[in-house]
Amino acid sequence: MKARERFRAGKNFKLLEDDADDKPLRDGNTGDSKGETKQQERDQTAQLTSQIARLQEMLYAQRTHKLLLVLQGMDTSGKDGTITSLFHGINPMGLRAVGFKAPTSTELAHDFLWRIHSHVPVAGEIVIFNRSHYEDVLITVVQGMIDEKECKRRYAQILDFERMLAESGTIIVKVFLHISNDEQRQRLQERLIDPDKQWKFDQNDVVQRKKWDEYQQAYQRAIVATDTDHAPWYVIPANSKTHRNLLISTLLLEILEDLKLSFPKFDPELAKLKIE
Amino acid sequence: MKARERFRAGKNFKLLEDDADDKPLRDGNTGDSKGETKQQERDQTAQLTSQIARLQEMLYAQRTHKLLLVLQGMDTSGKDGTITSLFHGINPMGLRAVGFKAPTSTELAHDFLWRIHSHVPVAGEIVIFNRSHYEDVLITVVQGMIDEKECKRRYAQILDFERMLAESGTIIVKVFLHISNDEQRQRLQERLIDPDKQWKFDQNDVVQRKKWDEYQQAYQRAIVATDTDHAPWYVIPANSKTHRNLLISTLLLEILEDLKLSFPKFDPELAKLKIE
Repeated sequence: MKARERFRAGKNFKLLEDDADDKPLRDGNTGDSKGETKQQERDQTAQLTSQIARLQEMLYAQRTHKLLLVLQGMDTSGKDGTITSLFHGINPMGLRAVGFKAPTSTELAHDFLWRIHSHVPVAGEIVIFNRSHYEDVLITVVQGMIDEKECKRRYAQILDFERMLAESGTIIVKVFLHISNDEQRQRLQERLIDPDKQWKFDQNDVVQRKKWDEYQQAYQRAIVATDTDHAPWYVIPANSKTHRNLLISTLLLEILEDLKLSFPKFDPELAKLKIE
Repeated sequence: MKARERFRAGKNFKLLEDDADDKPLRDGNTGDSKGETKQQERDQTAQLTSQIARLQEMLYAQRTHKLLLVLQGMDTSGKDGTITSLFHGINPMGLRAVGFKAPTSTELAHDFLWRIHSHVPVAGEIVIFNRSHYEDVLITVVQGMIDEKECKRRYAQILDFERMLAESGTIIVKVFLHISNDEQRQRLQERLIDPDKQWKFDQNDVVQRKKWDEYQQAYQRAIVATDTDHAPWYVIPANSKTHRNLLISTLLLEILEDLKLSFPKFDPELAKLKIE
């Protein structure tokens, strides 16, 4: 079965805690030890990302498609880690990573899609959103900043916006990095004691963590409400970092391969031109 | 001698064709064959770029410095190649590559620094300019689009602009990739016959190539006029791609090391916090 079908959320999607631990590509593929299995997954991922890098060159050369990868997930779910792990080796001229933080006062004075729209990919480009317009139907809902009516209105606005992008040649890939509550606890704890990582710790993460169940509900609703064929949601079990990277690179490669990319047509006449 | 001193253009800079072939870091470092020497240079460069990647993490974490790398050079001088080779392995969240092409009508309706200003790095970020505001005192001069008086006015405006950026915490590194006329001829010819690269060929490159000497003069003048301690020009011999990458990574690592970067201070009290 194709990864696109296998990890597609779909209209009947249920967000289940236990699924965060799934490792669907690990079956029959285990090394003698856990360390060995992880190394195998890293090697497989490196293989896939070098193929992705090659296809990205073609995407960049052809300038007919645009790819938007939306990464969402709870704190510590691995959004930054995914970007660092999977997209090195890709020409930075054709790749942009955009992080969305709490909106500025200027951004708040506009509609919620205004700041998003200005960062969508141009032809030939891959853009990764590290958080996105989905925060505007997640944190806003959990914090009670918008009511039910406004939430539904925003789902509809997101559907319209994404359809317009897709109709204009954007391949939209929305990924939810699914970790369990216990995995987040461990990761936050590790962050606190690691001198290279403590700076990433934010007291607000602990505050948000107390609303874990509300966030899971908000994610499930948002995913079901906005999963469409032109802008599908993929739910990636992400308790294992190496397996998460393998899954996402498998998915991305499949999507890029389906585009049947190639370098622009070679002109044999032009090749005869003699440069003086 | 430090790379910063060794490759600094300075006020007495003369752009000499033969220098494009220099390989100052290759002395006493040659393999048994040319292929082996190149592989050694690639390995050394990989070593340096992984150190750069580590320092970039700190730059990103600290958010006290901003780094702007300006890449200029004739067509085929290796601006894209430098970006692809040196900056993979660096977290795309803290790195942006910006290419400047012929200005749009909106951009032309503003001053020439307007579109440049909107892309300068924020704190914690490395931004690479693939071409830059220097095109506005190069192509414009060679094509006779601006006169001598306007050219001098722009030099002064560039000096003011860059001083303001430097005073606001931006480390500015301007690199001229120096190739010879014959090297360009060979590279354009190779581009034409390579099915993966022919798309990069632009008829206009041949037109511009006819004005080679005028461009060299314009570069020499611009470099001398705008080389300052806060925004120095480095002239990198670039006929050899592997050696060019070794030179630029050596230079960049030295500059980053001089910033004495570190991760934000570890707080042992915070490390005791127990995540529930």
